Parts: sequence; structure tokens; C-alpha cells
Amino acid sequence: MTAVLSGTDLGAAVALSCRECGARVELGPSYACTECFGPLEVAYEFRLRGDELRAAIEAGPQNIWRYAPLLPVPSHVASTPNINPGATKLVKAENLGRELGLRNLWVKDDSGNPTHSFKDRVVAVALAAARELGFKVLACPSTGNLANAVAAAAARAGIRSVVFIPSNLEQQKILTTAAYGGTLIAVDGNYDDINRLAGQIAAEQEDWAFVNVNVRPFYAEGSKTLAYEVAESLGWRIPQQVVIPIASGSQLTKVDKGFTELAALGLVDDTPYKIFGAQATGCSPVSQAYKAGQDFVQPVRPDTIAKSLAIGNPADGPYVLDVVNRTGGAVEDVTDEEVVEGIQLLARTEGIFAETAGGVTVAVLRKLLATGKLDPDAETVIFNTGDGLKTLDAIADKVGPTATIKPTLDAFEATGLA
Amino acid sequence: MTAVLSGTDLGAAVALSCRECGARVELGPSYACTECFGPLEVAYEFRLRGDELRAAIEAGPQNIWRYAPLLPVPSHVASTPNINPGATKLVKAENLGRELGLRNLWVKDDSGNPTHSFKDRVVAVALAAARELGFKVLACPSTGNLANAVAAAAARAGIRSVVFIPSNLEQQKILTTAAYGGTLIAVDGNYDDINRLAGQIAAEQEDWAFVNVNVRPFYAEGSKTLAYEVAESLGWRIPQQVVIPIASGSQLTKVDKGFTELAALGLVDDTPYKIFGAQATGCSPVSQAYKAGQDFVQPVRPDTIAKSLAIGNPADGPYVLDVVNRTGGAVEDVTDEEVVEGIQLLARTEGIFAETAGGVTVAVLRKLLATGKLDPDAETVIFNTGDGLKTLDAIADKVGPTATIKPTLDAFEATGLA
Repeated sequence: MTAVLSGTDLGAAVALSCRECGARVELGPSYACTECFGPLEVAYEFRLRGDELRAAIEAGPQNIWRYAPLLPVPSHVASTPNINPGATKLVKAENLGRELGLRNLWVKDDSGNPTHSFKDRVVAVALAAARELGFKVLACPSTGNLANAVAAAAARAGIRSVVFIPSNLEQQKILTTAAYGGTLIAVDGNYDDINRLAGQIAAEQEDWAFVNVNVRPFYAEGSKTLAYEVAESLGWRIPQQVVIPIASGSQLTKVDKGFTELAALGLVDDTPYKIFGAQATGCSPVSQAYKAGQDFVQPVRPDTIAKSLAIGNPADGPYVLDVVNRTGGAVEDVTDEEVVEGIQLLARTEGIFAETAGGVTVAVLRKLLATGKLDPDAETVIFNTGDGLKTLDAIADKVGPTATIKPTLDAFEATGLA
Repeated sequence: MTAVLSGTDLGAAVALSCRECGARVELGPSYACTECFGPLEVAYEFRLRGDELRAAIEAGPQNIWRYAPLLPVPSHVASTPNINPGATKLVKAENLGRELGLRNLWVKDDSGNPTHSFKDRVVAVALAAARELGFKVLACPSTGNLANAVAAAAARAGIRSVVFIPSNLEQQKILTTAAYGGTLIAVDGNYDDINRLAGQIAAEQEDWAFVNVNVRPFYAEGSKTLAYEVAESLGWRIPQQVVIPIASGSQLTKVDKGFTELAALGLVDDTPYKIFGAQATGCSPVSQAYKAGQDFVQPVRPDTIAKSLAIGNPADGPYVLDVVNRTGGAVEDVTDEEVVEGIQLLARTEGIFAETAGGVTVAVLRKLLATGKLDPDAETVIFNTGDGLKTLDAIADKVGPTATIKPTLDAFEATGLA
């Protein structure tokens, strides 16, 4: 497919630029630099700033499209059928903070999105850009949240979706994507096999947008909206500390990009912030690299219950190290047992039932506090990026009824629970 | 427990009044009329109206507490720990409308609530009122959504929850409540047994608020917020037709109450609207009564996959008949097969994956159109009250992969799906 720029409206986006060598190419379905093979990202010439930008945002809809002036999407995006994620709650976590000894803690709870994970944000932006670039089909390889988000967004947009999953995926997880009625291809292979197949198909099918492959630079920008929403919810202020789970690492680097943009555009004061990354020990290549003081990431073979974070060779790994080191944060990892404890702790204290990725983040928060890396007096935001309903197996052996009784008042009183 | 009114702040609520004989009692944990045993509901003397009320609402938070002046809750409710539901999306359903031949269709999607059902609304109001009335424990009998909502809301409020479930409930459904760490009592008995036990315990435990028993009048008011949100989302206008699922029937009658209040208070024009009720044929006592032209409801034994609607003896049944007949609506029911088709139709056209109750509503919408009871040209809102992730079994035999292939390009191309 040839990128056709004339007549294409991608808002303030003006080019794709290489994150390694800085070379620029025109906006289109490219994702690797033709000069150095480095990854591309969206570059902008923002048209609004300061009070004018803030007013435009605050007059916008209660979803991510209020930030359209900061995204690579058409100006009419809010009126085009899409999944319209965002405007999720920033919950003041007083109980959890008290339990951990944190004075000022918030949970950004992205389980409130349409398919209950932050993937709705990145898919919505990918869909908007892909449609503008002339793509006809929305596709992805995925084992979970991304598959749900692509199938749902495409359904609502009235276009075809093609989702590739491993054929040995649990039936429950197959149903959550199959429900939307798109094309669902089960592949006899592991995620690496499927990913490779997706790359091959993307090269063949000119009008298929694989959200996390050939339109990845647009897709990734969707995570910036997490930073925008947190800052706006706090009354246009950047929190002092943020803890973010790491899969590819893209979410973490884009939240940093979002904060940086807001400060540069005069929407928030340019106050210092520290970004912390969270991984499960069973897939902790970035944490290992951080602790070893390396600026590269050695791939690992994932073995953790936190499957939505189980990327052994994270594309944004080195950039995560850059961000964490630049801001004075850290990367930490926790065992699967700690992950489950994290899920239970968040549910018990705040009534938020998180996916395993959320358990990773809460457990890492606790560990960072225990080791003195996190300041307990600084305003802190942690991200819950998914929903516990999708990873029920993680707690299946850990929780259950307090008591089982006959249906009588005597039986109840005999439990001592009255 | 003696209701102590002095110093109690329940907003504009001034009394409980009998829905049968109109007798009034003071605000407190009463739910049956001492004169005639009729059900009680909250009576108000609203302090704000017209532009003043609208301005107060529009300056409020993005959750149900923006409507606090219209609810039986303390004036400081928004700053008290609670689950803070509401502000869910009103989705313009152009694809579904096109498929069914409806010109102007919306879906009020309550799966976006914290525990993904409308029960968060009623529980949040029950919690706020119960705390103000001096209760220390939040409790309920439930088999599903209500259990989730009570456990989550109590966790966030930092108070104890006690939830009663049948001991033979599927493990997946037990986990979704057990995750929050409250007291969970499994009872060897069916829902009727548990309900009876809850009533007995409520009579013994002075400081336990059973949300759907002794504080039911407050709890039920939470459903009015669905009406408020729909009207506000439409730019302060009442839609011409609404389709609402019926379990106890309380949601339907409270939506009617909400619209009536908005018109009386001058927030919307007093335009006519028709309210339609939706049931599964396997538990359709209200639909049967409607079709037979009766003003009473004969209890049935439920047998349907739509378990969240499976109340064989619906408390608000007669009032539903009143509302439907007064507004010129109807009640209709659909088979379990049609329910599953309804789930799939909504997911495929709008990317909204509904619980079985949502499938009931979509299928009834289609049936009402086919039989000419619904005007295809009138603005119509249907309610999706829950989330498909909680009723995956309903679609387990109906959807699945389109194809299963080896991980090669050739294998993919051989499917003919390229």
C-alpha cells in the first residue's frame, strides 16, 4: 500500500520519525526506519497550546477524543463510529494507601473501558488512523485483551476484523473475542508463530491494518491518553510518582511522552516526576536489565500467570530504561504469589478487581515502598490496566466462601460470623 | 433498629410512603407499610428545580452523585468512599438500528459500571443511605451481579460485607464475589431459601443493612439515575420509547419515576414516552399478565438462561403493568434461543458484549418491531444492564473460531478468508 498523504487528515501528526536516528518518513503504514531499521513514532506540529488547547479539550466529549488535537487522528474522529474508550476513573485509594503507608495514592482504573482493558485506547486510535489511511480490515495477533478490543472496535465501526489466536487458548478466552462475530483464526502454534504469521500476512494484504504491526506507530500513541486523563483528573497537574506495568513497555514510554507534551504545551507546570515499571519475575527482562545497569534488554522465555505482560522480548525495553533512568524511577518485579496477593489487596481495600497485570502493579508498589525506592509522601498514581473477570483462574485456589451452612438462622449463628 | 431522624441527612428525602395506601412513615429501615403491608418508597420535597437544579447537576462529578439532589443520600455523598457508578455511555446504535429498521436507536450501556452491571447504582445509593442511618454492615442474598456490587462497594467504603449465595453456584461466579474479601456465606439451598434466611437475619442483626430487604426503598431509588443519565445525555430530553429488562420490575418503575420527576421539576419538556418491558419466556410472569390483560402477576418457577432476570414472583410486577399501560408501552418475552441471538446481534453490530439480560432486551426490541408495537421512526433507548463476561456459558455452544490452521501463509490462504 502506498501512503497517500494528500487529502489525508491525521490531525497534528506530520510525519513518522525514527526513535533511533531521527530520520523522517511521511505518514503511512510504516513502522521501521528505512535508514537504520529503528522503530518509528508519530511526530507532530501541534496547532493549539496553553489556554486555547485546554479549552478545546474541556469542551470535548467524555472519552479519549477530547484529546484529539494531541493524537494522530482526523479532526472529525469523535463523530465516526469507534469504541470511544477513556474517561476512566482516577480513584482516590485511601484504604490501600493507609495499608501501605502512602499518604496520597490514586488508582487509574482502566477496567472501565468498553472491553475492560487499556487496549481499547490504542485500538481506537489505530482504527481511526487506519481508516483515514484507507485500510479496510482491522487485524491483530493476540491471546487476550487486544483480541477483545480489535473485535469490538471493528464491529462498532462496521468493518471486518481478523484476529489470530493460539488454537490451544482456553475456551473462555476464545468466547470473549468470538462473541463479536468477526473472523477468528485459531493457529496451531505459540504466540511467536502467530506473530510471525501476522507479519507475513500484513506484507501480503494491502488493506489490512494489523494494529500492533503495520500501524503500530499510531496504535502506540493511544497510551498517551492515560497521561492526559491522569493530569486532567488531578486538575491539570503531573503526579510525582507513577507505577506502570511493562509488557512491550510501550504504555510506559507513551505516558512519559504524554506528560512531556502537556508540560511543553503549557497545560501543566513542568514539575519533576518519576516513572516506575512493574513486571512479573517470570517475565522480567526489563527489570533484570535495570538492576544490572544495562541499557539493553536480554530476551527471556515467559513463565508467569501475568499473561497479558508476558512479552519476553519487549520492543520498547531500552526506551523504558531510558525513561526510568532519566526520571529517577526504577523497575521492579514480583513473584506470581505476590501478584495474586496484589490482586486481593486491591480488591479488598478499594473494591477494584484487577487482572493479573494490576496485581503485578500493586505488588510492585508495595515492594518499591518496602525497599525505599518510592517516596511514601509523594503523590503517586498506579495503573490498573485490565479486569479480574478475564483472569479468574489466578485467584481460583486463593479465595472462596467463608463458610458453608444449612439454610437456617441457627446454622448461621453457629458460624460465629453474626 | 430505631430510625433516628434528628441529625440524619438524606437530602431531599422526607419520608417513606406506601405505594398502595399512601400512608407515610419516617425515614428509616422500613420497607412495608404498617397500615396495609404495601411496599414503601422514598418521598421527597425537592429543594432545587429548573435552571438552578440543572446547573447544580452539570457542576457535579462524572458519576451518579451529580444527581444527589434527587436521591435519598447525604449532601456530602460525593466525598464519602463509595463505588461511584454511573456516567455510563449512551451509544448511538446505527448499525443495530439499520439492521432492525430503526431510525434513531441508542443503547444505554451499563456494563461500564465498576462491577459491570446496573446493580452498582442501587447498591451505591443503599450504601450511602445505610451509613447515614447508622448501619455498620452491608449485606445481601444474591446469585450474581448484586453480590459483586455489594462486596465491591463495602470494600471501598471500608465496611464489612456479608453476602449469601447458593452453595451450588458455579465456581466462576463465586470467585467474582470472593475476590473482594468480605464474608461470603454459601448456603445449602435455592435462592428462595437464602432470601428467607436473609429476612430472618435482618430481623436479628440491628446494624446490618440488607440492601434489597430492609433498606430496599433507598436501594431502589438508585435506578432513577438511569433515567436522569439518558435524559441528560440526550441534551435534557426524554426519549419516545424505552425498552427495559424486568427482573423484580423495580428498574422499570424507577426509570418511569425518574422521567416523571425530571418533567415535574422542569428539567425536560413533559413529552410523552412509552416504556416497554422485556422478559425471558422461561420467566415471564409480567409478560403473561400483560398479555392476559391482568393487573396482578401470577408467580412462576423460573427456567431460563437469563438468570439475572429469573425472579418468579417480581415485587414490582403490578407497578410495571401500571407503567406500561399508562404510557402505552407493552411487555414482551423471548425464548432462550432468541436471547443468545440478541447477545450476538448486539456484539456483532455495536461491539457491546452483553450479559443474557441484554440479550433479552435486544431480542424483545426485535420482536416488538416485528409485531408493530414499537414505532421504528421514534427515538428509542434500550438498556444493557450487565456484562457478557459474566455469562459466557450462554454463548459457549454458539460461537468459536472461524477456522483452525497451521502457522503458515499457505495454510491461511487456503482458508479463503484472505
